[in-house]
Amino acid sequence: MSITALAGGIGGARFLRGLLHAVPDADITVIGNVADDITLHGLHVSPDLDTVMYTLGGGINEEQGWGREDETFSVAEELAAYGAHPQWFTLGDRDIATHIVRTQMLSAGYPLSAVTEALCDRWRPGVRLLPVTDERVETHVVVADDTGMRAIHFQEWWVRWHARIAAARIMFVGIDSATPAPGVIEAITNADVVILPPSNPVVSIGPILSVPGVREAVASTDAPVVGLSPIIGAAPVRGMAGATLRSTGVEVSAAGVAGMFRDILDGWLVDTSDADSVAGIEALRTEGHLRCRAVPLLMHDVEAAAAMAREALDLAWSSRRQDA
Amino acid sequence: MSITALAGGIGGARFLRGLLHAVPDADITVIGNVADDITLHGLHVSPDLDTVMYTLGGGINEEQGWGREDETFSVAEELAAYGAHPQWFTLGDRDIATHIVRTQMLSAGYPLSAVTEALCDRWRPGVRLLPVTDERVETHVVVADDTGMRAIHFQEWWVRWHARIAAARIMFVGIDSATPAPGVIEAITNADVVILPPSNPVVSIGPILSVPGVREAVASTDAPVVGLSPIIGAAPVRGMAGATLRSTGVEVSAAGVAGMFRDILDGWLVDTSDADSVAGIEALRTEGHLRCRAVPLLMHDVEAAAAMAREALDLAWSSRRQDA
Repeated sequence: MSITALAGGIGGARFLRGLLHAVPDADITVIGNVADDITLHGLHVSPDLDTVMYTLGGGINEEQGWGREDETFSVAEELAAYGAHPQWFTLGDRDIATHIVRTQMLSAGYPLSAVTEALCDRWRPGVRLLPVTDERVETHVVVADDTGMRAIHFQEWWVRWHARIAAARIMFVGIDSATPAPGVIEAITNADVVILPPSNPVVSIGPILSVPGVREAVASTDAPVVGLSPIIGAAPVRGMAGATLRSTGVEVSAAGVAGMFRDILDGWLVDTSDADSVAGIEALRTEGHLRCRAVPLLMHDVEAAAAMAREALDLAWSSRRQDA
Repeated sequence: MSITALAGGIGGARFLRGLLHAVPDADITVIGNVADDITLHGLHVSPDLDTVMYTLGGGINEEQGWGREDETFSVAEELAAYGAHPQWFTLGDRDIATHIVRTQMLSAGYPLSAVTEALCDRWRPGVRLLPVTDERVETHVVVADDTGMRAIHFQEWWVRWHARIAAARIMFVGIDSATPAPGVIEAITNADVVILPPSNPVVSIGPILSVPGVREAVASTDAPVVGLSPIIGAAPVRGMAGATLRSTGVEVSAAGVAGMFRDILDGWLVDTSDADSVAGIEALRTEGHLRCRAVPLLMHDVEAAAAMAREALDLAWSSRRQDA
C-alpha cells in the first residue's frame, strides 16, 4: 500500500507516527511544508521538515513537540552575549548541527530534497520525506502597527508575536515560480491514498497545495483523498491556527477547513464533538462525493494517532469503493 | 606608553596577560596571526585571535589554553552523528557562537579587522587586537606519504597528525598578495616598544612578519624591538614548535630562533638555563646591537608572565638608551 501525506509540523508529525504504527509495512511518502523555513544566523532552518524527521526518527523533544530531546543551549546563550539578532528564535545546540549540515550542503549546490534525504539517512524516519519544492518559498505575514503596514516572516509573527498581531494577509513569497521537487507529483499521482493530516490548513497544507501543479495533482489523482480536521469545536487542537484562519476569512471550525479543500477531498474526518456538522460538510462538494465521519481526533498518544490513521484509511477505502 | 606585540596563540596570549598585569595603563596593540584560520562546517575559525581574545577577556579554558571555559559539545556530537567532516577538529558549542558571528559578519562584507573589533566589544580584552591582514592567508604544510607529496592545511597537520608527519615545507598561501590590515603598520611605526612574545616563530610570528610591509616596518621602526625565546634548552616551552623549526632547517634552540629575527631584533630574552648562549646570540646581529639576557621564561602563572614582561620592557629601555 502506497500512502502519500501532505504534512506540516507537530500535528502532521504526530499523525504520521500514528500512521506508521497502524500500517508499518506501508510505503509512505511525506510531502513536507518548507514555507516556514527561515535563515537564522546564516543557517537554513526547516522547522516542519525537521519536526517530521525528529518525531519519526526518535529525536524529538516529546513535551514541546519540536526541537531535539536532551537539548543544550550554549550557542544561543553566547549569540545573545554577542548581541546577535534575532533573539526571539532560540536554536538548540543539537538542532544547530542539523542546520549546519543543511546549510553546508545547500551551499555546495545540493537541492533541499537531496539534503533532506541525506539528513534522513541518519534519522531513518521510516517514510520518504520530500520537501514540496526545492525552490525557496517563504510565508510572510502582513501586519499593521503605528507605522503602517509591513510584511514580516511567518516565524517572526508566530514565534515572536505569538500570532497576537492581527494578520491582514498571509503570503507565500516565491510560490508562483516554484516547481514541485522531484517525486512530489508522482507520489500524489501514483498513491493508493492521499492523506491531509491535521496540520495547519493555512500555513502548512496551504503552501504545499499552492506550489503550482500540486493542488491539480491532488485533485486529479485516482487515489481517494482524505483529511483530518485540525479544528475541534471552534478551537485548533493545538497552536494558533485560529489566527491564521481568521486572517484568510475562514470560519474556525471543522467545516470551515473542509471548505478550503472541498475541490480535492473525497473524505473528511471531524471529531466526535463535531458530529452535527457532518451533513453540512458532505454537502460542501459540488461534484463527486465528499464523505464525512465523526471520530475521536485528539492525539493523546501514539495509539490514539494510530486509531485516527486507521479511521482515515477506512474512510479512504470506502470512498474508493464508492467511486468504483 | 605604547606597546605593540606580534602574537600567535597560547604562548602569546599568556604573555600578553602578564604584560597587561605588569603595565595595566599601557596602550597595547596586538597584531594577531590569521594564517592558521580555517573554515570548518562553513564557519570561519580564527584560533589565534580567539585565544588572545578569550585569554585576555576571561573566557579561556585555562587548563588547555585554548577554547572556552564551561564548554559543551552538543553540536560536535551531532555533526559526528551525521558523519560530517572533518571530524579531527572538535568545535565547542560556545566557541561555535563566536564563529557564527564572525562568519555572518564576513559574509555581510565586513573585513576581519572590523569583525574582530566587534567580537572584542564583548570580551574587552584590554588591548587593541588587530589581525595582521584582512586578506585570507593560510598556512599549508607539504607532507609526503605513500601517494607522494601533498599540501594539507596547517590545522590538519597540527591537530589531526600532531605534527608527527615530517613537513617538507611550510607555506603561507596568499601571503604575497596580502596587505597589512588598517592600523598594523602605524602600530609598529608609532610604538614605544615592539615585542615578540614567546609564540611559535615559524607558524605564528612567521606569517605576521611575512605580510608584505610588516617585517620592513618592524626593522625600520624607531622603537626597540625585543623578543622572548619560545625555546628553552632544546625544547619548545609547549606545543610542537620543534617540528616547525626542523621543517625550516632552523636549530631548535633559543639561538636558532633569535637567528630567524636577527635583522629586526634589538633585544632577546632567553631562559636562565640557556645563559651560555647569550654571547653567541649577541654576535648574531651584523649591524646595530643585539642585547641578550637570560631570565626565567617559564610562564607558570600570571605573575611569572608579568615578570617576563617587565624583563622584556627593561631590555627594551636599555636598548633604547644605548641607541640614544
